[in-house]
Amino acid sequence: MNPLADKSSLKGAVRSSNTSELQDMTKIEINPGVAPFPKPIILVGAMVEGNPNFITIAWFNRMNGTPNIWGLAMGKKHYTLEGIRKNGKFSVNFPSVELVEKTDFCGIYSGREVDKSNTFEVFYGELGDVPMIKECPVTAECSVHEIIELPKTALVLGEVRHAYSEERFMTDGALDARKTRPFVFIRPGDQYWSLGDAIGDAWSIGKVHKE
Amino acid sequence: MNPLADKSSLKGAVRSSNTSELQDMTKIEINPGVAPFPKPIILVGAMVEGNPNFITIAWFNRMNGTPNIWGLAMGKKHYTLEGIRKNGKFSVNFPSVELVEKTDFCGIYSGREVDKSNTFEVFYGELGDVPMIKECPVTAECSVHEIIELPKTALVLGEVRHAYSEERFMTDGALDARKTRPFVFIRPGDQYWSLGDAIGDAWSIGKVHKE
Repeated sequence: MNPLADKSSLKGAVRSSNTSELQDMTKIEINPGVAPFPKPIILVGAMVEGNPNFITIAWFNRMNGTPNIWGLAMGKKHYTLEGIRKNGKFSVNFPSVELVEKTDFCGIYSGREVDKSNTFEVFYGELGDVPMIKECPVTAECSVHEIIELPKTALVLGEVRHAYSEERFMTDGALDARKTRPFVFIRPGDQYWSLGDAIGDAWSIGKVHKE
Repeated sequence: MNPLADKSSLKGAVRSSNTSELQDMTKIEINPGVAPFPKPIILVGAMVEGNPNFITIAWFNRMNGTPNIWGLAMGKKHYTLEGIRKNGKFSVNFPSVELVEKTDFCGIYSGREVDKSNTFEVFYGELGDVPMIKECPVTAECSVHEIIELPKTALVLGEVRHAYSEERFMTDGALDARKTRPFVFIRPGDQYWSLGDAIGDAWSIGKVHKE
């Protein structure tokens, strides 16, 4: 098997760049340090030295279905991480577009320099001393499943134990993204972006391509 | 420290639900199986039994900065995972909104049932037999850093070795999301959504909240 022999290869594409009409679609190698995709934005909460602290994180997603395990990666020196390691539990808070400034604030300053315990109205749920943000449409309490040490980050895997919302963010009993109004982080550019429109139903629109 | 003593608690919130004017903002416990945030959508590629195969994944994000490590979680039985485990390398392909139907197609059907090797025009780069999708504005070749076994998924951590794009997706030498036009996956509802508008600059708009 030699895939370069019978498929369009990078080298082939680069060669075709002499043909001006093809140049626009020529593949070029770019900096491999990029991560050019929309990232969800969350506020991670934990008690640190007796006070609620929150940090903004974009390196986050679901990692397992049942149990519901979420993973978030953060620099090893973050103040909130101290609380997560010590308590074995933390919160994940999903801000709406209205909270974009406060969300950015929690990403700029460390809890070591700035007291973030009064940035939001804090509430607590079943797990006890896990601070959650009342202004966030959806929040969750997680217990640490495992912390994986990567070269520069700690990858915190947490199992969702309890989740909270309000009736006003639901339609027919289910959370409605048109009401929770999440936003994403875009790099390069380092901007927060709102969401647009639904463009198709998953597990459905692709069926047209089955022969 | 007893946070329940001096902060608004869930129980307090539930009690206040008798007051009709507050009811709309009452916190209620919801199904902890939710994952209500926008997820990036990628197509993961690998050679499996000599053929290019692609699977759609939404449980994905960056996990470490330098080196650039991305993590993706997928069910342990997926066909593409066989190729990743065997070859120790894979591709990540970022589709634009124009590819939403083909992207959904790759998420519905397994490579065991359906030949996806001709769904896209495939090209290869520096790592050799790692199939990438020519129609995707940005693609990357990754080598496996580590595979972490979670209860129902394999969390594949890959280091980005090479990344590829085209001049037409860039502005001033940097990838431009207004040109790459990514989309996200939204659950509940299971829909793909386009992005909206920039709503603020990160590391900047939050400074107003510093005293």
